[in-house]
Amino acid sequence: MTEKSNTVLNFSREADLALEYALSNRDDFLEELFSLIRIPSVGTQPERRAETAAAASWLTEHMEKVGLDNVELISTEGNHLVYGDWLEAGSEKPTVLIYGHYDVQPADPLHKWQTPPFEPTVKNGYVYARGSADDKGQLFIHIKSVESYLKSIGRLPVNVKFIFEGEEESGGLSLEKYVPNSLDQLSADVVLISDTPMISKELPAIVYGLRGMCFVFLDVTGPSHDLHSGSYGGGIDNPLNALAHIISKLKDESGKILIPGFYDQVRPLTGEERQLLAENPVQENVWLANSGAPNIWGEPDYSLTERLGARPTLDVNGIIGGYTGEGAKTVLPSTAHAKISMRLVPEQKVADIYNLFQEYVAQISPPTVHTKCTFVHGGSPALIDRDIPAMHAAIKAYEVVFGQKPVFIREGGSIPVVNLFKRHLGIESILMGFGLPDDRIHSPNERFYLPNFYRGIECSIRFLDLYSRMDRSGK
Amino acid sequence: MTEKSNTVLNFSREADLALEYALSNRDDFLEELFSLIRIPSVGTQPERRAETAAAASWLTEHMEKVGLDNVELISTEGNHLVYGDWLEAGSEKPTVLIYGHYDVQPADPLHKWQTPPFEPTVKNGYVYARGSADDKGQLFIHIKSVESYLKSIGRLPVNVKFIFEGEEESGGLSLEKYVPNSLDQLSADVVLISDTPMISKELPAIVYGLRGMCFVFLDVTGPSHDLHSGSYGGGIDNPLNALAHIISKLKDESGKILIPGFYDQVRPLTGEERQLLAENPVQENVWLANSGAPNIWGEPDYSLTERLGARPTLDVNGIIGGYTGEGAKTVLPSTAHAKISMRLVPEQKVADIYNLFQEYVAQISPPTVHTKCTFVHGGSPALIDRDIPAMHAAIKAYEVVFGQKPVFIREGGSIPVVNLFKRHLGIESILMGFGLPDDRIHSPNERFYLPNFYRGIECSIRFLDLYSRMDRSGK
Repeated sequence: MTEKSNTVLNFSREADLALEYALSNRDDFLEELFSLIRIPSVGTQPERRAETAAAASWLTEHMEKVGLDNVELISTEGNHLVYGDWLEAGSEKPTVLIYGHYDVQPADPLHKWQTPPFEPTVKNGYVYARGSADDKGQLFIHIKSVESYLKSIGRLPVNVKFIFEGEEESGGLSLEKYVPNSLDQLSADVVLISDTPMISKELPAIVYGLRGMCFVFLDVTGPSHDLHSGSYGGGIDNPLNALAHIISKLKDESGKILIPGFYDQVRPLTGEERQLLAENPVQENVWLANSGAPNIWGEPDYSLTERLGARPTLDVNGIIGGYTGEGAKTVLPSTAHAKISMRLVPEQKVADIYNLFQEYVAQISPPTVHTKCTFVHGGSPALIDRDIPAMHAAIKAYEVVFGQKPVFIREGGSIPVVNLFKRHLGIESILMGFGLPDDRIHSPNERFYLPNFYRGIECSIRFLDLYSRMDRSGK
Repeated sequence: MTEKSNTVLNFSREADLALEYALSNRDDFLEELFSLIRIPSVGTQPERRAETAAAASWLTEHMEKVGLDNVELISTEGNHLVYGDWLEAGSEKPTVLIYGHYDVQPADPLHKWQTPPFEPTVKNGYVYARGSADDKGQLFIHIKSVESYLKSIGRLPVNVKFIFEGEEESGGLSLEKYVPNSLDQLSADVVLISDTPMISKELPAIVYGLRGMCFVFLDVTGPSHDLHSGSYGGGIDNPLNALAHIISKLKDESGKILIPGFYDQVRPLTGEERQLLAENPVQENVWLANSGAPNIWGEPDYSLTERLGARPTLDVNGIIGGYTGEGAKTVLPSTAHAKISMRLVPEQKVADIYNLFQEYVAQISPPTVHTKCTFVHGGSPALIDRDIPAMHAAIKAYEVVFGQKPVFIREGGSIPVVNLFKRHLGIESILMGFGLPDDRIHSPNERFYLPNFYRGIECSIRFLDLYSRMDRSGK
């Protein structure tokens, strides 16, 4: 493996033996991964229910085979959870809870795939298949890392617990119900998750900030039924025009949200954090090209990286109202409906933001229509403490394997399990991603960069070793 | 009939004989109308094509039976036109072109009908049936008026031409193509149309103003595909938010249209006209209750009647964009679509208004999205000259039969045939309506007030007589 690494850091002999095992079993590891990928575990499709269950069973069998203990297929109202552990490192050693998900996105539209979605195909250093990067390839890294220890030296440097779910792409309800009732089983010092991308093939990244969410419906009602716009137009307020006025008052054209008090709870970015975020070498032109939009846009006082990760937003996700069929129809519509989501950043509270939204909409709504707000769902924003031992171990493991320190990024979306584990287990998550930005997860021709599979295993082996030798009270 | 009338105005013996005939044949007239109504001539429904054709055939046979000449069933690419005339009054007498339409709206939703939609049912002085008021009952008035003359005295006081179409409810394309190629056949001094409502059972109305129309599509495109609002929100402009901003700049919340130059061609209301319009005793609370809206709304400097008839408007008729299914989906949508119609008043020109719209939208569109305007259809606004002989004849006929002069109203919608005849034949239309505001045309339980059927025949008889004796060069 990386020759330089042993000279830079004093790795243990145990880790080196595990690495040797991993190196000499590369081909088997890949074949095993392919077996898992071939199971079309599309968790949301009822017709794939059996296959989704089969993927969970395959994992339990495989985890037993690699030497994990207490392997369990946990039945839920939805798709199975899978658990397994190895806890013989001793109580003075930390415990790592490794999370992943074996469910995958639907493969549709099928005709856009250049290779069969559930037949892993290797081309130019990538394996093409649904679930290859999201998340089968990434979760398998840690199983293989653990196997490499157990099958070489017969033990792990830390205690390890695995928890895999089959509903990550569909809300994660089963895990959400399970965690609060399984605190002993899942208790750990840190969560390790590989389900995010790196910046590029050479530059790893750790996500340390996640935006939260406040999703609302906004319904505007005017007349009790659609009216003839000739007979009533000019004398009755039009709910679609009214909705447009309301929306235009929620956020100005430069991206500033106009709801009074909306920014009150936003923790200002420190100079240090802005510098940290600035190290993320986002290629704005590439990013823009991926979006297909005419221009980059947003709050002028913040960089693109800051806008996406560290600033709250308000986006209309959908509107419907009036006549939307082909051609023209001159109705003055009865109702107009908007779906609106606000991405939140620390320390914004979902409930407070919803209340501010609701009060402001009531205040700016004209008396000529009725408006109604409905809270749909929410999630808290998260900032992961970057100054914990596991984080330092992750940084070093990346540095050794990839030759570069990871950049720290704030992710614009949310990863609900991070909040779930924090809330119930009181622990942080290390988001140690091995994907790439152009893996096309959720799209046709999803792929996973094979060198990252092998480097990921190496990185996981290094991480477990480094973490076991960190001073757990400090650095 | 009205005893008083003969003492007020010096009617001709001929008209009195026609009235006598009408009076003694009331029951037959009604039965014949019922026969026409029973034919479900829903012009837009392909499965009703045969029945729609049957209604046209029924009319030609009936027109021959009452003594009209040159009766013709005119084939078109759509539904038949029906023509018939009686031109023996002599060239010194004026010619009246009587227009009506035999197609009716679909009867859906059927379950809301209290009686079968195509089985005329008399209750409380109304006949309930689809097409009873719109427009079979009203067009039949004039056939019966003409019959009453021809079957009593064997002649009419004026020359008469009938033209009926079967596509009024679906755009009137066949008539639009026919008129310019049939100028000789259709040439006349005035058009007589009964397809509008009176103010109330006692108070007749003549529509003299019609709003025009400029219908446009406004499409906003941002990214080339729907994006994840977490990964892109805050850094890419959202077409739905952008569309809301654009729409909010088209018309302010008080109803003032903000497109520069939009009002330049609007002919200001004269004091006399405002007084005339003020005579229309619109019961605002009844009108509002019919709309089901919370409040009346519109330009503060204009009365409700003025807002509806004499002021231009801009209404969003439909919007769609982003995710509009059930529940929540956090997309940053690629596109947003709006259908927008502007009702125009004299002397606004459709092409000029479209150009102003397009230029202004281009000007207020941010560089972060693409906007596209498409002209869909348009129609000129119309003001009918109230100072022509036929108008004076109509006023007097109404006054004699209903005991009250008609009020003059400006209709908020448009009646395209008025423009069609004006453009190609160079003549005005007299919109002598016999419907009532609560006839529920286009809705379940459409009805026609039976006394208006009989009074309508009387009114038509009086009109033809009065018009024949007007000084055609003045009043």
